[in-house]
Amino acid sequence: MNDTTGEAGVFDAGLERREANFAPLTPVTFLARSADVYPDKLAVVHGDMRLTYGELYARCRRFASALRRRGIGQDDVVAVMSPNIPALLEAHYGPAMIGAVLNPLNIRLDAGAIAFILEHGGAKLLITDREFSDTIKEALSRMDSPPPVIDIDDPMHEGGELLGETDYESFLLEGDPAFAWQRPEDEWRAISLNYTSGTTGNPKGVVVHHRGAYLNALGQILVHGLTRQSVYLWTLPMFHCNGWTYTWGVTAIGGTHVCLRRVDPGLIFDLIADEGVTHMCGAPIVLNMMINAPSQLRRSFPQTVDAGTGGAAPPAAVIEAMEGMGFHVTHLYGTTEAYGPATVCAWHDEWDALPMAERARKSARQGVRYPTLEEVMVLDPTTMQPVPPDGETMGEIMYRGNTVMKGYLKNPTATEAAFAGGWYHSGDLAVVHPDGYIEVRDRSKDIIISGGENISSIEVEGMLYKHPKVLEAAVVARPDEKWGETPCAFVTLKEGEEATSEEIIGFCRDNMAHYKCPKTVLFGPLPKTSTGKIQKYELRERVKEI
Amino acid sequence: MNDTTGEAGVFDAGLERREANFAPLTPVTFLARSADVYPDKLAVVHGDMRLTYGELYARCRRFASALRRRGIGQDDVVAVMSPNIPALLEAHYGPAMIGAVLNPLNIRLDAGAIAFILEHGGAKLLITDREFSDTIKEALSRMDSPPPVIDIDDPMHEGGELLGETDYESFLLEGDPAFAWQRPEDEWRAISLNYTSGTTGNPKGVVVHHRGAYLNALGQILVHGLTRQSVYLWTLPMFHCNGWTYTWGVTAIGGTHVCLRRVDPGLIFDLIADEGVTHMCGAPIVLNMMINAPSQLRRSFPQTVDAGTGGAAPPAAVIEAMEGMGFHVTHLYGTTEAYGPATVCAWHDEWDALPMAERARKSARQGVRYPTLEEVMVLDPTTMQPVPPDGETMGEIMYRGNTVMKGYLKNPTATEAAFAGGWYHSGDLAVVHPDGYIEVRDRSKDIIISGGENISSIEVEGMLYKHPKVLEAAVVARPDEKWGETPCAFVTLKEGEEATSEEIIGFCRDNMAHYKCPKTVLFGPLPKTSTGKIQKYELRERVKEI
Repeated sequence: MNDTTGEAGVFDAGLERREANFAPLTPVTFLARSADVYPDKLAVVHGDMRLTYGELYARCRRFASALRRRGIGQDDVVAVMSPNIPALLEAHYGPAMIGAVLNPLNIRLDAGAIAFILEHGGAKLLITDREFSDTIKEALSRMDSPPPVIDIDDPMHEGGELLGETDYESFLLEGDPAFAWQRPEDEWRAISLNYTSGTTGNPKGVVVHHRGAYLNALGQILVHGLTRQSVYLWTLPMFHCNGWTYTWGVTAIGGTHVCLRRVDPGLIFDLIADEGVTHMCGAPIVLNMMINAPSQLRRSFPQTVDAGTGGAAPPAAVIEAMEGMGFHVTHLYGTTEAYGPATVCAWHDEWDALPMAERARKSARQGVRYPTLEEVMVLDPTTMQPVPPDGETMGEIMYRGNTVMKGYLKNPTATEAAFAGGWYHSGDLAVVHPDGYIEVRDRSKDIIISGGENISSIEVEGMLYKHPKVLEAAVVARPDEKWGETPCAFVTLKEGEEATSEEIIGFCRDNMAHYKCPKTVLFGPLPKTSTGKIQKYELRERVKEI
Repeated sequence: MNDTTGEAGVFDAGLERREANFAPLTPVTFLARSADVYPDKLAVVHGDMRLTYGELYARCRRFASALRRRGIGQDDVVAVMSPNIPALLEAHYGPAMIGAVLNPLNIRLDAGAIAFILEHGGAKLLITDREFSDTIKEALSRMDSPPPVIDIDDPMHEGGELLGETDYESFLLEGDPAFAWQRPEDEWRAISLNYTSGTTGNPKGVVVHHRGAYLNALGQILVHGLTRQSVYLWTLPMFHCNGWTYTWGVTAIGGTHVCLRRVDPGLIFDLIADEGVTHMCGAPIVLNMMINAPSQLRRSFPQTVDAGTGGAAPPAAVIEAMEGMGFHVTHLYGTTEAYGPATVCAWHDEWDALPMAERARKSARQGVRYPTLEEVMVLDPTTMQPVPPDGETMGEIMYRGNTVMKGYLKNPTATEAAFAGGWYHSGDLAVVHPDGYIEVRDRSKDIIISGGENISSIEVEGMLYKHPKVLEAAVVARPDEKWGETPCAFVTLKEGEEATSEEIIGFCRDNMAHYKCPKTVLFGPLPKTSTGKIQKYELRERVKEI
């Protein structure tokens, strides 16, 4: 490629990596810096407990040191079963300081799933909150050689029992607050092991590394405009993709983490108003919960709160209602395999002037790649060619770059399938609009094929959500002799509302192509996974029984 | 270190780097993303010329493609002699897209120095602005085999002549606007070659890489709070440490670059007011120039402009005057070897309430490491142990991390000396305050030893700057039979002012320890390097002649 002559290698000779000019990237450095620069600044709020950055750093160093004294070392897994409280935040630093791997457990899982994960991940230690003692006790009893247990004895929770040899605060006291932690010898080393909830089969263990955690944390700062004045409320589970790397990002900028044991609208409003929250995240259901909160629980506040949401496109009514309460909704999209968010519906200032319906249509799109993710494309999964940006042709969302997982733990088949052709395959079907923004149409397996036409279950659901009486909706395929499949809708009505199938179907027929409209509507609560996703496979089972 | 048993290597097996999850970091991706996300957003302003991100990206791809067609490839050096105009900004992307190395030339250098740099760096191509045709013609005439030349024929400048085979705009037209650029195969590859001005001897060629450029650009966004609404005015030379990596940082966040051919206070005020500038940088002399601008040139503006400054601590009077005009001054410190800024006097909100003198004293400190630089320490250069944080004990500022250069081009002796003991040696002497903030006391070689006591020339200069008649001041050692050395001051008075040596010395004696006061004061203009640094070695020569 270089046809010119020249002094070969002058830019390499004697200019190799060395201690002075190369250090493996790790998000632990963010905590060290914030503690050095802002030792007295408020880092963590948890009820009446307040930790400065100096204190948070000292606690994390104690954590690392205490682990080391128990023989925990590189690549050893430390599992944590905890809501969004300081112990779990600290677990994003302590183990990483000695090369150990955090395994944050989904607190909504049952004993069987927990036992599977502890066995599969090979946890060397389990730190668990009293609230989950029943599940954990049962899980441990199913294991041949359960790990030692440390209890989090949080005064903010009543009930449950202590299972382990010691409690977390005593454990920290075993450690040295001035412990000399070490960077990983390679930034590719694992920092966290996150099991996907998986709608079928056993969960897969997503392995992420220090380099990606560092970069995605910076990406969060860029996308959400975090500053040292930012106050982040933990409405999003920290166990979920390491809290979309906000666990590290908020610390990197020297902002404040406000902990939250449970998603309770009244408590959320109180913390926003009292602690001056500027940022939060959550599934649309969290936003819905706030919108529908009784008026006596609501609080007004002077700041605008950036509310990141993902998992499903926020409907216009949700965006409008949230804006009316003082929030700006940012639509994100991603997967555990991408450290959380991979795309953002990056806002353009000129969209501010659009009517609400138009703004909501802009916002509903999953958007564009994070600045720290190299490529996001919508490809035809057969040819691996990009689909045209016509807003119509569907392909599969694929991405690649530094914030994509190392792979699945001890699951080479799944890893190779996920990375086939040099791209991570999301399994989500989308179109590309003329401005390059992508919009998810469906999960590959959720598409409905009726009379040879593809119907996006998400599109039908979007229409159902527009019906004023509908709280939640999910659409799956119903086998049909004539059409092959037809859309079948499951609908939860808002409290106190009543409706008929005919009314719902009629509403759809008035507003969208008739072949896309549900032929069947069933009313009732929707089954959900532990992370709040609607379980369509369960609905498909029900359809078979109709 | 890992005493526990376990399944060795489960976090590595099958989880290696691959195309889907690893990409060498390069700041070129920032431009590609901003062009994808904000194709119609204003990227560059240069007089009446306006470039959107879509246009800027297309021009840079043409640049890369045109270089490739001329046989330029990996590690080939492309030298550019240009003020802060689009061609030099584009040169931060075009060469990098094909693995070539930018060599931005200091436009204030003479023909001899330019010829040396072109020879030493082995430039394969020179792109030069008409304004510098005399110097360049002379430099090329001194070379045995001068590189081919392309002229920048900027309508914003009159005069000079065209020296080369073609002009820059025609050259761009040779290239493909959809050129498929490539990431470097290794993020450690060189991206830029920046010669230090050097107060003595031949300049040294600092080699920086894609990884460091990427990270430092993100560091700038974090430190200065850049957003997509940011408008950056190019008062800082882009040739100087690649414009402290703002060349890449402003692009990464999708902000606007406002070009500036020359540092002219009236033009600066006009651009701030008319283009809505939010950020700028410059040596204190640039701030001084604005403060002392005739009132008819000044403009008021509604926004607060973040003005980064470095090279010397901003005096209280400068900070106060700048704030009165609508600026917030941020004190930075660094070297070309660290991609520009290595530390920032990170502000604490509680300092807002302090009296101006106290705030200026806080601001005068060089502060703390950038978030993207791993370590900055003040070490005793003999023992390599940290000095106590007492605000008194001096040591040498040393740093290490990912935003430290690869080394000096073809200069292993200088490289090894700079990296001795695993740290980059800045050559600056500093103290560490109890809050961990560092404050530069002097260059190692500028310290004055009088009667066995160390005297910081910077401290004496700081006192001289407080004298109401003093515009500029520099202090060097004068050999003395009795004391060994005594401080000798060179002073430039403000326009229209008169003063005597006795008056200046008396002012010092009234305000600081007598042994630190100048024994000699000489009046007149101060000799400066091409980057505006006062040439103390030249003053030392003069002292010998007294």
